[in-house]
Order: sequence, then C-alpha cells, then structure tokens
Amino acid sequence: MKLASLKHGRDGRLVVVSDDLAWYADAGHICATLQGALDDWERVAPDLAVLATDLRNEAIPRERFHEHDAAAPLPRAHQWLDGSAYVNHVALVRQARGAEMPESFWHDPLMYQGGSDGFLGPRDAIPLADESWGCDLEGEVVVVTGDVPPGATRDEALAAIRLVGLTNDVSLRHLIPAELAKGFGFVQSKPASAFSPVFVTPDALGDWWRDGKLHRRLMVDLNGAPFGRADAGVDMTFDFGTLVAHAAKTRALGAGTIVGSGTVSNRDADGGPGRPVAEGGVGYSCLAELRTVEAIRSGEPLTPFLKKGDTVRIWVEDDRHHSVFGAIEQVVG
Amino acid sequence: MKLASLKHGRDGRLVVVSDDLAWYADAGHICATLQGALDDWERVAPDLAVLATDLRNEAIPRERFHEHDAAAPLPRAHQWLDGSAYVNHVALVRQARGAEMPESFWHDPLMYQGGSDGFLGPRDAIPLADESWGCDLEGEVVVVTGDVPPGATRDEALAAIRLVGLTNDVSLRHLIPAELAKGFGFVQSKPASAFSPVFVTPDALGDWWRDGKLHRRLMVDLNGAPFGRADAGVDMTFDFGTLVAHAAKTRALGAGTIVGSGTVSNRDADGGPGRPVAEGGVGYSCLAELRTVEAIRSGEPLTPFLKKGDTVRIWVEDDRHHSVFGAIEQVVG
Repeated sequence: MKLASLKHGRDGRLVVVSDDLAWYADAGHICATLQGALDDWERVAPDLAVLATDLRNEAIPRERFHEHDAAAPLPRAHQWLDGSAYVNHVALVRQARGAEMPESFWHDPLMYQGGSDGFLGPRDAIPLADESWGCDLEGEVVVVTGDVPPGATRDEALAAIRLVGLTNDVSLRHLIPAELAKGFGFVQSKPASAFSPVFVTPDALGDWWRDGKLHRRLMVDLNGAPFGRADAGVDMTFDFGTLVAHAAKTRALGAGTIVGSGTVSNRDADGGPGRPVAEGGVGYSCLAELRTVEAIRSGEPLTPFLKKGDTVRIWVEDDRHHSVFGAIEQVVG
Repeated sequence: MKLASLKHGRDGRLVVVSDDLAWYADAGHICATLQGALDDWERVAPDLAVLATDLRNEAIPRERFHEHDAAAPLPRAHQWLDGSAYVNHVALVRQARGAEMPESFWHDPLMYQGGSDGFLGPRDAIPLADESWGCDLEGEVVVVTGDVPPGATRDEALAAIRLVGLTNDVSLRHLIPAELAKGFGFVQSKPASAFSPVFVTPDALGDWWRDGKLHRRLMVDLNGAPFGRADAGVDMTFDFGTLVAHAAKTRALGAGTIVGSGTVSNRDADGGPGRPVAEGGVGYSCLAELRTVEAIRSGEPLTPFLKKGDTVRIWVEDDRHHSVFGAIEQVVG
C-alpha cells in the first residue's frame, strides 16, 4: 500500500496511490490525514488496504496522481529523529578533518532530534537565504513508526514500523561545526527536510525490505547528472530496528515518529572511499562526502555546495526502472 | 486568558480556565484542541477571549477545574526547542567540571531540539526505569509561538508569542555526558517533559511579562520542602524574543512551537553561586546545580538525584499566593 498527502491545509489530505504512482483514490471517508491514520492504525489500515485493492482493480473513482501536488506524506510530524547508520560516511568525514572516530561509533548509534514542525513537499524549492551557509543535500531512507513502548527491543521496534520512504535532509554545512562544538546538536544548521511523494508499507516492498533495511539503490542526481547510486542495504551498520530501539531506550515514541537512516553511503569495491559515478563508482548521497573524498585525494574539496538554481533529484527504482516512492526533485531557490 | 487541555485522546480537549483556576468552560464549539486554536489563532483567539469573559462573568455553564484532570496544554506538539538562557547556570556546571566556558556562550544561545511526540500532564508520574540514569528535574519557563517567518527579528519573534507556561524538563544526567560527547545533542537523556496545567496569554500576565521575560519567582519544592525560589526575570541572559529569533534564523517555526528558557537560575546576592533556600538563598531549579555548588564547596556532590517516590512541585504565584499556571506536581515512579 502506498500513501500520500495532497497539499491541503497544514496536514494535507490523505490519499491512497496506485502501485505505479499513476492514480490516487481519496481516503477522506476513512481518515482525513496520515497522522490520523497512524494514530489509529489497527482500525484504519485495513480499510485503507481495501481501498488500495479497489484502486488496483479500478473498482472505485480514481484521479491522476501528480507528484507535484503532493505535500510531504506527513507535512508536519510530532517527531523526527535522524540517525547516522552508514558509519562509513561518518568515518570518512572525520578522516578528512584529521579527527579520530571513537570506536564506540560502531556500536552506539549517532542520532539527533530534528525539527518536525513543517516539512517540504517533494517538489518544493529549498529555501536558502544565504549561499555562504553551505547548503547540502542528504539522501536518506526513513521509516514511520506506530507507538513504540519505552525500552522496546529491536524486534518490537521493527514490528512497529508502519511505512518506509525517502528524505532529502537539507543541511547547512558551514553552520554545523559551531553548533556541534556547543554539544547540543543541530538547530540552525538543519532547516526543513523534504520527503518522497509517497510512503510505502513494508509488506508492499516485498524482498526489498528485510533485516530492517531497504535493499535498493538510492538514486541521486545533481543538476541532471548521476551523482549517487549507493545501495541502501549495504554498509548500513545499524538497521532501522536498532535505530528505533535506540531512540526508545528511555521513553516511548508516539505514532507518526519518523526515523532516518542518515546519509546513505557505500564503501568502494576495494574497501576505500567511494568513487564518483562517472569513474565507475556508486557515488555519493551528499556533497560533503564527495568533498571529503576530494580532500583526501587532492588536499582540498573542489565541488562547491549548492547554489541557487541547482537541482537535486532523489528516488528509488524497481527492476523495470519505475519509481517506487516517487521522486524528491527540488530546486535551490 | 488561560487555556488548558483536559485529558482526552492524543491531543486533549480544549477548555478556557478562570483566572483563579477554579472553573473551566468547554471550548469545543470553537476549537477542539489547543493545536487547532494555534493553527488558526487570528480567527479563534477572539472567540476564546469572549468565552473567557463569559466565564469570568458566570454567564455560561461552567465546571470545576481540577489540575489532575489536565493533560499538558499541548499533549503533543510539532516542535519543542529548549534554550539555556540562564548562562549563570551553564557557567556553574562547567566550573564544577573544571571546564572553561567559551566566551561566545554569553552571545550565542545554547539550544537543543527536544522530543515533542508525547508530553506528561502536570500530575503524571515521571516514569523512571533505572535510578542509575540520574533523574533530575529542571524548572523552566516556556512560551508557545504562532507561525514565525525565517529570519524573524527579536521584535517579530516577541510578537509571535501566544502563550506562556512552565515545564519540568526531566533529564537523565548520567546519560548526558556520553550523548553530548557525540555532539548530536540529547535523545536518550531527555525523556518526556511535563507542563503546567494552564498556559496563559502574555496580556493576562500584565506587568509580569515584559522584555520577553516572566518577572516572577519560579517556586520549586522537593519532597515538600522549599528547593528553589529563583526569579525567572533575573539573570536571564537571552530573553524569549532572542531565543525564538535564534531558532528561526534559517527556517520558519510552525504554530505551536514550544520554546523553553532552560533551567531558571539566579546568582547569589554577592554574585557567587546561589545558596540553598534553607540558608537564606533563592535555591535551585534542578538538582544538578545544587550538586555543582556542593562540589565547589566541599569537593563532591552530596545530594542524590531523584529516586522512586520523590515528589517535585513547580509553580508560580501571584501577590496573594494564588497559583498563576497551576502546579506541576509529579512523583517519580
């Protein structure tokens, strides 16, 4: 089952979307919003599933689904927690800085609490008031949970995952060092993230969803050229069950909590830093990683951060190159 | 005007409360929830104000208001940002650790993004699975904003403040050092916060609300004994206008954003660390500060963190010793 929120008010209008993303059926008679559905999932999800089946069978009125009409599936949420599960990425960034990475980073997930009061839709521009802030994309996989009890195990956490999707976790790189030095995490350096047009139930992903990971390549294009093709199922040190359980160690997580993987990142085939797609590698899911590799190779980063007018595209394909979650496609403006 | 949410579902049931906190009138015919009212404040607030006047004049049906029936005014929110505006408190804690405080801390607010997916009501127990986590109270003032545009000035931020209230920002002190060392802020070390039974519009606070500060003493009792009597209007280095503008530097803040002051803390009359209430001082709004003072005086902290069965009470009084926001009164359980 694929769910989306068409732009409408602050919380969108819940629709069920066909598997090929071509059509939608209004779900308003079942539940007005996706948050409402997550709040009452046991009761609502079966009805939404029936609607999805009817849509597949063309048994109900349907409308054309246009990705640019979609808000973020949760246009605002009550919680957004982002991990750094691809520790390879963290190790690389540290290496470029000449900073040692604590060994504990391989066992204890890095995670920050992000702002969830207003997310960008998949085709919304990335607002950027000042290019000197060093605006970067971060291509990630996310999950949305139901209620998670405090102290949940990894298995309990996995069972609480309701939906899977993608995010562009926009980062202002030049504001990060000063904020992180204060120790209190990100506030100014993490403006609103954008999300894929649809979120998908794990069962609808079949074999691509296993071991708490999405086993597909995360496609990232920058200004129309292939930039990242890393496999989200590879080099993910902490699966989503582990990330959700980490977040729930001392407190319950409310239904509709979004948990992110952190920037997807694969090692190169030889175990070293990834190479650009143009050089036969799987590339990168953020500019910071490319700049890090450049710094390791040539002493300094060469690729600039995002400028006004740059375009970012993030998506995942099935075996026939059809989009699974729809595409995040944003212009910096 | 004083607003509360009676316990009901995930978002409570909006009521208007009398100035003396004795009575309430249901506001459901105007707006079902406080979040809904904040989403549409320009339209809804005048109607709520009329209801408050009618309640004052006993012109409408009213019911007894019991603080233990209240949820947090926003039982869940879309954003909770907590500052550390009483820099004196930060300086003290650092001094006890032997760590120097950067001079920038006097100009650049410390602020973290907290979890907002589920808050505790004012009389809810503080869930504590493990006493070794070092559970602490933190008595703070909070404001709730309307929509704040990105890059808002301090004056614009001040004008966007809709409500003022109190919080007990529960902290797990022994989990903090390891999380802060990672640089990504608090996740496990900040479980759900509790809020005062009512939030109050700034105009209803009269002269107590000025310069973006609440000029009243924050009363904190621990196990029935006076623990803190610090004036929230004193030694607050960053006022709420500055804190909100800090949060909005690179992004909009959605209506219903809660911004906290951080632990209220006053210097002693001689400029040194505050003394306990029993020694004629204004005491403390968290155990960590008392433990810090103990460490400075005698080489080690003496007072333990919260244990199961301990009670915490946080409130503010008017000149006749009547409660302004109602009391947060929690047992550790």
